[in-house]
Amino acid sequence: MSNLNHLEAIRIALSHKKLKRVGKILHRMHPAKVAGLLEALPPVERLSVWSMVETERAGRILTYLHDEIRVALALELDLEDLIASAQHLELDDRVDLIQTLPSDLGNKLLRASSASQRKQLESMLAYPEDSAGGLMDADAIQIRADVKVSTVLRYLRLLETLPAHTDMLMVVDRKGHYQGGLRLSTLVTADLDRAVADVLDADIAGIAVTTEGSDVARLFQDHDLLSAPVVDEHNRVIGRITVDDVVDLIREDSDRALMHMAGLDDEADMFAPVLVSSRRRAVWLGINLITAFSAAWVIGLFQATLEQLVALAVLMPIVASMGGIAGSQTLTLVIRGLALGQVQKGNIRILLNRELGVSILNGLLWAVVIALLAVAWFGNWGLGAVLGSAILINLLCAALAGWAIPLILDRMGIDPALAGSVILTTVTDIVGFFAFLGLASVLLL
Amino acid sequence: MSNLNHLEAIRIALSHKKLKRVGKILHRMHPAKVAGLLEALPPVERLSVWSMVETERAGRILTYLHDEIRVALALELDLEDLIASAQHLELDDRVDLIQTLPSDLGNKLLRASSASQRKQLESMLAYPEDSAGGLMDADAIQIRADVKVSTVLRYLRLLETLPAHTDMLMVVDRKGHYQGGLRLSTLVTADLDRAVADVLDADIAGIAVTTEGSDVARLFQDHDLLSAPVVDEHNRVIGRITVDDVVDLIREDSDRALMHMAGLDDEADMFAPVLVSSRRRAVWLGINLITAFSAAWVIGLFQATLEQLVALAVLMPIVASMGGIAGSQTLTLVIRGLALGQVQKGNIRILLNRELGVSILNGLLWAVVIALLAVAWFGNWGLGAVLGSAILINLLCAALAGWAIPLILDRMGIDPALAGSVILTTVTDIVGFFAFLGLASVLLL
Repeated sequence: MSNLNHLEAIRIALSHKKLKRVGKILHRMHPAKVAGLLEALPPVERLSVWSMVETERAGRILTYLHDEIRVALALELDLEDLIASAQHLELDDRVDLIQTLPSDLGNKLLRASSASQRKQLESMLAYPEDSAGGLMDADAIQIRADVKVSTVLRYLRLLETLPAHTDMLMVVDRKGHYQGGLRLSTLVTADLDRAVADVLDADIAGIAVTTEGSDVARLFQDHDLLSAPVVDEHNRVIGRITVDDVVDLIREDSDRALMHMAGLDDEADMFAPVLVSSRRRAVWLGINLITAFSAAWVIGLFQATLEQLVALAVLMPIVASMGGIAGSQTLTLVIRGLALGQVQKGNIRILLNRELGVSILNGLLWAVVIALLAVAWFGNWGLGAVLGSAILINLLCAALAGWAIPLILDRMGIDPALAGSVILTTVTDIVGFFAFLGLASVLLL
Repeated sequence: MSNLNHLEAIRIALSHKKLKRVGKILHRMHPAKVAGLLEALPPVERLSVWSMVETERAGRILTYLHDEIRVALALELDLEDLIASAQHLELDDRVDLIQTLPSDLGNKLLRASSASQRKQLESMLAYPEDSAGGLMDADAIQIRADVKVSTVLRYLRLLETLPAHTDMLMVVDRKGHYQGGLRLSTLVTADLDRAVADVLDADIAGIAVTTEGSDVARLFQDHDLLSAPVVDEHNRVIGRITVDDVVDLIREDSDRALMHMAGLDDEADMFAPVLVSSRRRAVWLGINLITAFSAAWVIGLFQATLEQLVALAVLMPIVASMGGIAGSQTLTLVIRGLALGQVQKGNIRILLNRELGVSILNGLLWAVVIALLAVAWFGNWGLGAVLGSAILINLLCAALAGWAIPLILDRMGIDPALAGSVILTTVTDIVGFFAFLGLASVLLL
């Protein structure tokens, strides 16, 4: 509600050219809200608003934006302002920013960092964005297992501040090998004379630096972690991942699945120039046109049949449509099961049997219902029988295709959410039209 | 990978009736993994495995399961085992369990809790599951603003342990009104003689107990929170929400959107009995049948036209299909924008103009391409012109419908992901067939 008011208030201020008022409104908003507001504005107004953001807040705001808008707005800043704004960021956010910018600009940002930070940044940049190494921050506080709780407390007080989101210290042995985590909540309640080794939590496993982002997210979710150490191949702590970055990752993953299913880019600007959006979406329409023409081609094979019995043309979309719906239910179930790790080698056959069972029951039910409706409409029992049979055949094929397509795509390393439903529709359209018109031409003419 | 091996290992052990080996494997697994494994098993094997779970771990495992399986497995336990297993749960998880169980069983669980816990549980149960009150735990540690850091540390040491996921203490004034948060990371670095009032973080806002779950999730994400206080209408702290519950909420929300778009229930068992699954999915197929028959009815209006020019029957699915694809792109964009709060009253008109612009450009492009393909196929220029015009009309209507449908559903309080695409397809099918066949009957015959 308040955000809605912000958007309207800012658009009114802009229309009256009152930029100072815009600056005042922005100043009172959290950087995440400012980012949301920028994304909700059309490009021209967005640039006016962006020009009123304080430099020291610009970096934080950039980290909350989707890639396309982030790059566009970063390029609007003078280089020195961009560098200054990046200085206010945590290292993992700075890495994220550098990775999305064009490489020459990213390099300038990297070179502008202090020598020690640059070394850390470079080591973090060496890992893929979507891995434990890409998600980690290099600011883990390490303590030795053989010191006392009181010593740790004295040491922390010398540091004066701890990195943001520190809920745990990483305990290492003399050689720097990771031993376990010492939670701050344990530290403040533990007996001052006990050794760290006695109060650490050895159950908090180190995450290997090469672990994939989705597995990191699963670990955090299953173990209710707030932060976790990242270790190299020698079990030495090289960083830590905090839950706030994992939350972003989970949100982005779900966002991506939704957008990919419609052939959209999840990092794109909702208000990108019409020509740019049109070109991007044209690709998806073009791919789907292949599906549509394949279906038309199948129908074309039966032109003579259709000429003799035009009721077939009236009823044929029903066969294709029911198959598509039933198939997409199986498809979605398998895609979800793959994402949650519940569809595995050990149970894919059981799942297929179940899906076939469901499709036989629903196929029989709807075959009868639809056949009777068709008979009532056209008064032709043969037509009803052919229609019902085609529905049953298509629902069975839809279950098989909805089960097999995501498994095959997954094994090929292709995101099933992106390509799955196009392929499925192609199958259910072709099978549906072929079964219905083929049976009709054999049995009815 | 290891989970895959677990599933296969357990199924092999089961097939050899070696239940003790199953128990051993389970014992080594994290409760979340056990839950994942149970969900990946067909019902009969699932019950065998469940019988081998230790009682003290059963409660934790139940909290990780989807509702349908959770209820089924909870009902398998003896009442006393269920009560015993629930004792090991944090209060918010216990509330969650009570809420999903049949009410008589939930009440028994409630009555079995100690008097003080029952009072807390009852106050938590009074709030909707998906609100700040339903998400909160009642275990917030409150300290007074006027005491010294050293006093707080002494107090905490007396408590011996802090509730899980404590990263922050809630600071209140003499009357219990919330003042701000004192992070443990500040506490361990702050000067011992300073007053809490000087080191607290007043920016950490209290969340009103009635706040909706999705708004809580947004707050946590935008402000990178690990935990946050929940306050009543008098600004008194009544609990706290921890990020682990928010992570679950975000994951469930995205899961629900994906499943709802295919008309599936996100809490249902993947291995529910075939008859149960069939009945559930039949509803969705039945709803879609209305769409399919509406489209067939429109085609039926033009039977005479189709009889004269059978090429129309061949090409008509292309018009409907292209409209459906283009419309679902706009629909998804608006649904996503609504979920992220980026589509608002202040910019919905701009968005409509953009979507119409995109659909005109893509409509013109694909109208020409498809028209030319049709002319090449059937050698009929008039047919090509009619087809192209119908594509253009349908893409324009698709953009309008894809924009309007989610906005209307959202205002009516209906989840646009659940009903949006069915309604959209109905519109694009009807408009597509009507435009194509209508134009053809007027212009070509």
